[in-house]
Amino acid sequence: MQNNRILLVKRPLGAISPDCWQLEENCLVRPLDEGEILVETHYLSIDPAMRGWMNEGKSYIKPVALGDTMRALGVGKVIASTADAFPVGSYISGSLGVQELAILPAKEAVSVNPSFLPLPVYLGTLGMSGMTAYFGMLDTGQPKAGETVVVSGAAGAVGSVAGQIAKLKGCRVVGIAGGEEKCAYVKNQLGFDDCIDYKAGALRKRLAAACPEGVDVFFDNVGGEILDTVLTLINKKARIVICGAISQYNTSRPEGPKNYLSLLVNRAKMEGIVVFDNAANYGSAAKEMAGWIQEGKLNAQYHVEKGGIRAFHDTLQKLFEGANTGKMVLQVKA
Amino acid sequence: MQNNRILLVKRPLGAISPDCWQLEENCLVRPLDEGEILVETHYLSIDPAMRGWMNEGKSYIKPVALGDTMRALGVGKVIASTADAFPVGSYISGSLGVQELAILPAKEAVSVNPSFLPLPVYLGTLGMSGMTAYFGMLDTGQPKAGETVVVSGAAGAVGSVAGQIAKLKGCRVVGIAGGEEKCAYVKNQLGFDDCIDYKAGALRKRLAAACPEGVDVFFDNVGGEILDTVLTLINKKARIVICGAISQYNTSRPEGPKNYLSLLVNRAKMEGIVVFDNAANYGSAAKEMAGWIQEGKLNAQYHVEKGGIRAFHDTLQKLFEGANTGKMVLQVKA
Repeated sequence: MQNNRILLVKRPLGAISPDCWQLEENCLVRPLDEGEILVETHYLSIDPAMRGWMNEGKSYIKPVALGDTMRALGVGKVIASTADAFPVGSYISGSLGVQELAILPAKEAVSVNPSFLPLPVYLGTLGMSGMTAYFGMLDTGQPKAGETVVVSGAAGAVGSVAGQIAKLKGCRVVGIAGGEEKCAYVKNQLGFDDCIDYKAGALRKRLAAACPEGVDVFFDNVGGEILDTVLTLINKKARIVICGAISQYNTSRPEGPKNYLSLLVNRAKMEGIVVFDNAANYGSAAKEMAGWIQEGKLNAQYHVEKGGIRAFHDTLQKLFEGANTGKMVLQVKA
Repeated sequence: MQNNRILLVKRPLGAISPDCWQLEENCLVRPLDEGEILVETHYLSIDPAMRGWMNEGKSYIKPVALGDTMRALGVGKVIASTADAFPVGSYISGSLGVQELAILPAKEAVSVNPSFLPLPVYLGTLGMSGMTAYFGMLDTGQPKAGETVVVSGAAGAVGSVAGQIAKLKGCRVVGIAGGEEKCAYVKNQLGFDDCIDYKAGALRKRLAAACPEGVDVFFDNVGGEILDTVLTLINKKARIVICGAISQYNTSRPEGPKNYLSLLVNRAKMEGIVVFDNAANYGSAAKEMAGWIQEGKLNAQYHVEKGGIRAFHDTLQKLFEGANTGKMVLQVKA
């Protein structure tokens, strides 16, 4: 069998250029070792974190080596197997990489069920994005009923779930998103109390009006000016969850939050999260969230881009341009 | 009786200029109401926080109003009293203001004993500075034996105590201070394991060498480049205590920590503290620290400037220039 895949061949400085990638076609697939599965990729998870994986140097996960297949989580169908747990025809999620066929040890795969929920949901609300939202909001944000919670990147894969979870906990939830259409989606489809379009100007004034009692929890996916603005509106003992900073990933000179001394004045804290720390509890979280989805309390939105692995670069660009509402996935096998 | 005092008459933009102050001489002292005491100021506490009190706008404490006596904590002797708890001749600490005589309600005064410890110690190690160090280090920093703790402003009133407390808890403690002399003092007098002179260049390299196992707790009094440098050296689950940012107080364009995403990578947190939140526990903290001082485990250093209230402006400048080791106090009554 032959595989097609995308290799990382250059580390970007700032924005990602197409020459960071190289398409390798018609590579031979080696025979399986004992306990391995061969997976046909159906969907790939397209994540802001990918930008970080392309950098050299210390981070929460090893960088992708130059010349290696680009890392990506995905869902797909088992088409060959030497592992009893995953017979041919079953579906799994795992770190498949940007390729059409992937071999992985069975112990690194998780069973998924496409007749229960659409496959992309296992990459979004029930995948890393949803887990990030769940643990980041509940364990680190610790929202209490009646508090005001602000979520940036509110229409995105993580923000959309984080805000809905805060609503389930009885909070007033205000999103920040880019554009009128996204804000309408956040309010009408996701049920946030309000959503501020950061592209429309006067961010601080409009956010202050939407949060008349100040901000108790800020779940930040964006960083930059948005973080700095929210810092001026936080309440005493506020919790700022640093989940990401998509505004900063493609700049070679990141900006720090110049209003960080608001943490001091307000005895507030800012805490970073990495979802992998909660791996032991993914199962129970997924079960609870699947329940919420079935009861209609949690909208598990996703956005499918087509074109297979050849569309990977463009799809990643679209993610950074904010083209998606909900989880961005790339369809690899129709 | 007649009083001399310093009024705040102009809010500074950036650095404090002498025309922010006005000396008012020979003001008449009004008669005491029931439950009040008249205090002769002996020493005033000179604090970085004073810069913040001069600003307009929301903070953790009301700004000093224009035309009012500048706020200052102090210790002094009761020279008239309508309160049984504080007879004439007793000593108290309280918010005296930058003036030679102060009237305050007895319930806002705390008894101090100059035959037990020198009066300036009640403004330093057993005053706000020491309380800030105690609660900031123990409650927020939560140092564990064997961990590495870095303290900036290590020769200052708060840093000197914070670092010594971490030593008492069994940590490796590394200070950051300005100049060889201060660093020698921090190592030799205060017993820190090491101290890095930030004025000598190559801060990151030398700090990394002094912290071969990374940084678990950073107690920051300085901000700016020092905070940004330490952020590159923190360990997983590190705690950064934001106590102050003396490098930023006199700038009109503060800088944010551009490496704040290290919080994310390291699942670390940055938390602001305000000592007043612990007021209910000052008594027990002071008792424990007084014990450490008596046992010779805690060096309660202070630095006295002379010249009375007319030297207030110059003394505050010296504080911002880092002229002191230990608590900076202004002697008002010899």
